[in-house]
Amino acid sequence: MAELSHLDQQGRARMVDVSDKADTEREAIAAGEVRMQPETLQLIAGQAADGNAQSSGFAPSGTADLKKGDVLTVAKVAGILAAKRTAELIPMCHSLPLTGVAVDFEIDVPASRVRIVATAKTRGKTGVEMEALTAVSLAALTIYDMAKAVDRTMEIGAVRLLRKSGGKSDLGLPA
Amino acid sequence: MAELSHLDQQGRARMVDVSDKADTEREAIAAGEVRMQPETLQLIAGQAADGNAQSSGFAPSGTADLKKGDVLTVAKVAGILAAKRTAELIPMCHSLPLTGVAVDFEIDVPASRVRIVATAKTRGKTGVEMEALTAVSLAALTIYDMAKAVDRTMEIGAVRLLRKSGGKSDLGLPA
Amino acid sequence: MAELSHLDQQGRARMVDVSDKADTEREAIAAGEVRMQPETLQLIAGQAADGNAQSSGFAPSGTADLKKGDVLTVAKVAGILAAKRTAELIPMCHSLPLTGVAVDFEIDVPASRVRIVATAKTRGKTGVEMEALTAVSLAALTIYDMAKAVDRTMEIGAVRLLRKSGGKSDLGLPA
Amino acid sequence: MAELSHLDQQGRARMVDVSDKADTEREAIAAGEVRMQPETLQLIAGQAADGNAQSSGFAPSGTADLKKGDVLTVAKVAGILAAKRTAELIPMCHSLPLTGVAVDFEIDVPASRVRIVATAKTRGKTGVEMEALTAVSLAALTIYDMAKAVDRTMEIGAVRLLRKSGGKSDLGLPA
Amino acid sequence: MAELSHLDQQGRARMVDVSDKADTEREAIAAGEVRMQPETLQLIAGQAADGNAQSSGFAPSGTADLKKGDVLTVAKVAGILAAKRTAELIPMCHSLPLTGVAVDFEIDVPASRVRIVATAKTRGKTGVEMEALTAVSLAALTIYDMAKAVDRTMEIGAVRLLRKSGGKSDLGLPA
Amino acid sequence: MAELSHLDQQGRARMVDVSDKADTEREAIAAGEVRMQPETLQLIAGQAADGNAQSSGFAPSGTADLKKGDVLTVAKVAGILAAKRTAELIPMCHSLPLTGVAVDFEIDVPASRVRIVATAKTRGKTGVEMEALTAVSLAALTIYDMAKAVDRTMEIGAVRLLRKSGGKSDLGLPA
Repeated sequence: MAELSHLDQQGRARMVDVSDKADTEREAIAAGEVRMQPETLQLIAGQAADGNAQSSGFAPSGTADLKKGDVLTVAKVAGILAAKRTAELIPMCHSLPLTGVAVDFEIDVPASRVRIVATAKTRGKTGVEMEALTAVSLAALTIYDMAKAVDRTMEIGAVRLLRKSGGKSDLGLPA
Repeated sequence: MAELSHLDQQGRARMVDVSDKADTEREAIAAGEVRMQPETLQLIAGQAADGNAQSSGFAPSGTADLKKGDVLTVAKVAGILAAKRTAELIPMCHSLPLTGVAVDFEIDVPASRVRIVATAKTRGKTGVEMEALTAVSLAALTIYDMAKAVDRTMEIGAVRLLRKSGGKSDLGLPA
Repeated sequence: MAELSHLDQQGRARMVDVSDKADTEREAIAAGEVRMQPETLQLIAGQAADGNAQSSGFAPSGTADLKKGDVLTVAKVAGILAAKRTAELIPMCHSLPLTGVAVDFEIDVPASRVRIVATAKTRGKTGVEMEALTAVSLAALTIYDMAKAVDRTMEIGAVRLLRKSGGKSDLGLPA
Repeated sequence: MAELSHLDQQGRARMVDVSDKADTEREAIAAGEVRMQPETLQLIAGQAADGNAQSSGFAPSGTADLKKGDVLTVAKVAGILAAKRTAELIPMCHSLPLTGVAVDFEIDVPASRVRIVATAKTRGKTGVEMEALTAVSLAALTIYDMAKAVDRTMEIGAVRLLRKSGGKSDLGLPA
Repeated sequence: MAELSHLDQQGRARMVDVSDKADTEREAIAAGEVRMQPETLQLIAGQAADGNAQSSGFAPSGTADLKKGDVLTVAKVAGILAAKRTAELIPMCHSLPLTGVAVDFEIDVPASRVRIVATAKTRGKTGVEMEALTAVSLAALTIYDMAKAVDRTMEIGAVRLLRKSGGKSDLGLPA
Repeated sequence: MAELSHLDQQGRARMVDVSDKADTEREAIAAGEVRMQPETLQLIAGQAADGNAQSSGFAPSGTADLKKGDVLTVAKVAGILAAKRTAELIPMCHSLPLTGVAVDFEIDVPASRVRIVATAKTRGKTGVEMEALTAVSLAALTIYDMAKAVDRTMEIGAVRLLRKSGGKSDLGLPA
């Protein structure tokens, strides 16, 4: 039967010893979303957009790529900074110097949500899925924080791994 | 029309000035969940339980309160520590000394998930919903981290505010 | 003769004991600048501006207030976050919960520089000039970082206190 | 035309992906200064010096190298610690383990300033100029903090890169 | 005569430059203890143990290995997290990514103490004894914190290096 | 029977809720020591002392108060910084803004050790013994770090609370 790698034989938590693993290129892509009221989404999305841009932006194609303004830039910075501090936040994570982190957003009008996709890269002994997931989570929390005064119904969800380099599963970017 | 309080007139991000707010008792309760394979849930839940306890624990009543072991304790610590560092992680959050943080878990066998509930308290000028939501998010990420070697399908979701002291909405604890 | 308050009688460093000071409203405003090549300034300033806006923006009136884009938003976030962590960075500083931090920028075309002004506020026992100065310094370093690939001649300077609430000196905002 | 490497095609901030860069020896030297009243400089410089040492130390040769005491040691520690945390403070910086950091000071009596020179070294994929500049800035802020009770006119300036290993520019140490 | 490597010729503190050192496998084991009242030890040790287990656990053999509960798990997490942040806490320490950290406890009934052993591993240019010692110290402080309400006489001691890979001294685990 | 306040009824760790406690003046004094070879002690103590000063300094009176140099200043800074970050390091500690921290050292020649005494003060809802103990521990670790190249036998010990304001026990400073 499978066992939790972060527990020893006695069921006690541990940080897995990766001394014997090789340094290889690692990449992980994670996603998540913040669901909100349509009016809240419009405040975030329309922030830096002209009226015309908005009307086309909110077309039924689903994921308009408007000029997005300060809220999402602040959330991006929060996500990137958090990715670099993952090992401080998640007790059994190994610290490793990331060679790249990207955090991107899509305004999804029909589903009334901001979608977040984060990519983390390194050359190291362990995968970087926790770094990508942490970037997504903190970017989501930052959006929540900046919009919470106007919307008490927001919900963060669908935080999950999309892809991991070298791994068997390649789910691709969901529509 | 409502406006995002964290943006000034020009749509630029800002930290809201709360100098004129009174210090009052503040409390916020947030929740979230990590959905996973039933086998993964069993590894986490059954970890510190005897065989007998397990069979009753996994009864169809929904939220068995088994003796849970190291994984959840580690996640609890991660959640509490993160709550105390919320203002470092979320750019426009005010730092304020928390007077209490609690992070609790429920093993929900029918839905194959760990539910997380976090409470944050302070006496201060701003609410502590971000502290509670941050505790939930980091506890969830820590569970994910410790189980990721056996389960690639986990998903963190339903991260939301349940209750805020002094606020109008009191949703209570969902079933 | 005046003495350095952070040294004891033997000339050894110390954190000043402020236990007996009263909690009062405190505010400090600090400023600084990043001097750079005109082309670099244009890249930062023109980033989110249309062609027309630029030509007027670079008028000789001195401090054009263009729509500034991501570089300055990232720098603002860095400044705000650093202000909240001042006591971690400056050994003898007291930690105190800020009630407000603002970081603003001006594109000064004639002098070919970005000017930075930061305001910090609290209710506490010590002044917040170090918080304002730290916000300016980290915002400046962040601008430097994002432009360093195109400009090796940048220089950060004129980092100073402009005003301190309750203090005798009120220098005002220099032109 | 040159472009800001930290912005993508849409002008959005990003952390540059350095996955494909080689690990090489990197070194950067940065400098800066804190200008202050002559009496303040004397308090800092004379702190650990005897009367005789002072009179020769304040000779017109410009940069006397007195025995400097606690203020500068505290500032040095602040600079070194900050260098190691640069990637936490500057959003788009890569974290990388430094193999050496040095922070040194010169008492410049004629110009009534403390000059700061910081060197950072690593073996890695990116340069370490931000680490050196961050060390200088935090050392300067720490000096400011410890002397601010006696001098409201201090100013931090001339924070710049002096040299970067492998780079084309080698400005040397200015007189 | 031997010299302190962290001081330069003038007796000023410095971070040792390790640029020229080779990357090798490094391991260090450190130990320490928290001495306390027998009743306090029993509260910590007996926490997750049944009555029967206790009586055998407290046998005169000295180091019973009971099922230990939440206090020790929290202390373990604190120790592991601190090990990863050693370079932030100890000014002249180099930061390096640890490949493994383990923190283990023994309940030593006859001596009325909790013994702590921590192991740190990396591949790098410097030893990791400070990481192991920091893990021990913070684990000890965390135990102290959680028991201090019932015991004012606790004392942390015997914090020392047991073993260092590649070094000449191999003291082994003391009885 | 006494119970561990940081555990709930089920023996699970928690952060104690102090919302109902009053804000009062709090002070705690902790001590500890680093035992080392006499030659190591001499290197640390004699560092900033002249030959003459040393011979009187190492008189048999026990705790000579020599001019101590950079090692102890660096250790003091480490201790003060750590005290301010106690709540980040010790999971169940409350964060509270300290109004004062002092870290002092005594060179104890006969016992061949550096003694460390730290005082922490605040106005708040919880005691500050963990802040004082953390300051002592990190100051001790920093001394260890800077001397470890010349002495493998050092040991940190006797880390304990000396006094706590308002408490019943006032042990005073031991000889």
